[in-house]
Amino acid sequence: MRLRTVVSDIGGSRAEVRIDGDWFASPARDVGELVSLPNWTAALSIRPSNEATRSALVVLAPGKIVCCGHNYRAHIAEMGRPEPEFPTLFAKFADTLTAWDADIALPGAAESFGLDWEAELAIVIGAPLRHADRAAARAGIAGYTVANDFSMRVWQRRTSQWLQGKAFEATTPLGPELVTPDEADPADGLRISCRVNGVEEQTGSTDDLVFDPATLLAYISEFTTLRPGDVVLTGTPGGVGAAADPPRQLRPGDVVETEIEGIGLLRNRITTMEGNRDDQ
Amino acid sequence: MRLRTVVSDIGGSRAEVRIDGDWFASPARDVGELVSLPNWTAALSIRPSNEATRSALVVLAPGKIVCCGHNYRAHIAEMGRPEPEFPTLFAKFADTLTAWDADIALPGAAESFGLDWEAELAIVIGAPLRHADRAAARAGIAGYTVANDFSMRVWQRRTSQWLQGKAFEATTPLGPELVTPDEADPADGLRISCRVNGVEEQTGSTDDLVFDPATLLAYISEFTTLRPGDVVLTGTPGGVGAAADPPRQLRPGDVVETEIEGIGLLRNRITTMEGNRDDQ
Repeated sequence: MRLRTVVSDIGGSRAEVRIDGDWFASPARDVGELVSLPNWTAALSIRPSNEATRSALVVLAPGKIVCCGHNYRAHIAEMGRPEPEFPTLFAKFADTLTAWDADIALPGAAESFGLDWEAELAIVIGAPLRHADRAAARAGIAGYTVANDFSMRVWQRRTSQWLQGKAFEATTPLGPELVTPDEADPADGLRISCRVNGVEEQTGSTDDLVFDPATLLAYISEFTTLRPGDVVLTGTPGGVGAAADPPRQLRPGDVVETEIEGIGLLRNRITTMEGNRDDQ
Repeated sequence: MRLRTVVSDIGGSRAEVRIDGDWFASPARDVGELVSLPNWTAALSIRPSNEATRSALVVLAPGKIVCCGHNYRAHIAEMGRPEPEFPTLFAKFADTLTAWDADIALPGAAESFGLDWEAELAIVIGAPLRHADRAAARAGIAGYTVANDFSMRVWQRRTSQWLQGKAFEATTPLGPELVTPDEADPADGLRISCRVNGVEEQTGSTDDLVFDPATLLAYISEFTTLRPGDVVLTGTPGGVGAAADPPRQLRPGDVVETEIEGIGLLRNRITTMEGNRDDQ
């Protein structure tokens, strides 16, 4: 099953669910709220025919976003690193997210930020998880969607902690739809890729994760509670710009497409903020 | 002026303000909401006399918590490090916070976590800050309170990113009250200290910060918006357990007192979770 969040031209947002090729409306204001309702499949209704809607951020304001680094075996091996014993975790803020087709705005001169791409499988949580084992964690997955953990490498490398390079406002596109686990299973090896201006730069398979979705959620749930609508990003495969020789970065006008087989496609254009604040 | 959040025995929470030694009620459900109201000083009323209240977390659910490491000059010098050019930033989640007098629960055997103390000055935001200069950032400070960034060193050191050691649920006490900038100014050099079982382990002065509150908020506002009720932790002075020789850690029964002159005092007892999950 596929779920999305739409904004209506007559105001407000709502979650919708696709059944047999048709979209149905729900009373929830976004997919995160919908999956937190018990028996949410019973809450669907026919869409009003007299309104225009547009696709919006699949989860509007998750309470928590947890991200994992160094998680694709092939990428770890090509970097000559040992396989990690524990997941490397950092956080993003809810307003770091943006829609699947939104522009990604550089706040100033490209060289001052070093914007790079990172295609990622994203998990949306469907049930509270605390001290969960792998089975409980697996049952707590509402579904999967696509993310690009766009990173400002210049800021990421200023200190040991990555947050400031990973949390620029509205730089992590997420969506366009949530796909439930019965329809797409990362353990089946879904192809994940990132294209820049039509050229494939990253490619990998979702069965190459050191810490698979259930393992990652179980681990996170040892120190914090994951709740319905929370988002977990699972890391990126090889082929980022920072690892190229010489290193590469995105520039205004570039178009980045992030795709996971059977889940979805993001398409984001790189722009600059109005007024081009390259004095920062 | 001093602001606090209380929970009433007849249900609900509210922010209160102390004027001339008396506490007044507000319509806001916590201090974070109160400072976001325009003209909030006009919204106060006499407290109901027929209810009992207890002090609660000063900001119940901040949208963002941003923390700074390596920020006290004396501590940086004693570690033999150079003064940093940029603030080292990481995040916590809203449910990482806990009340000023709450127990801090070890999830299992003390050795598996390495719980350590970190006394910190906390800033609560009072106005939206985005691309703010220092003057705007200073004007956007609602006030100051006290925090202890209790850290699980074993988890913090598992990977390069500190989050998992810094975000254990309900381990960062905050409070007990917010003190407005007209009443307490960190630039005046307020004494900050941490005592464990009555013995002073950390001491420093709030005028020893490499990145003072306004500088820190202005920097953060370059990549993300700070909003009323958001919390920024400013780093800890020397004397943490991890830096002792041999290193020290907290154990069940220890009592930690965190104090900033003119702002407030936290008092937290270390306990273990019921059922003592030392199999984790």
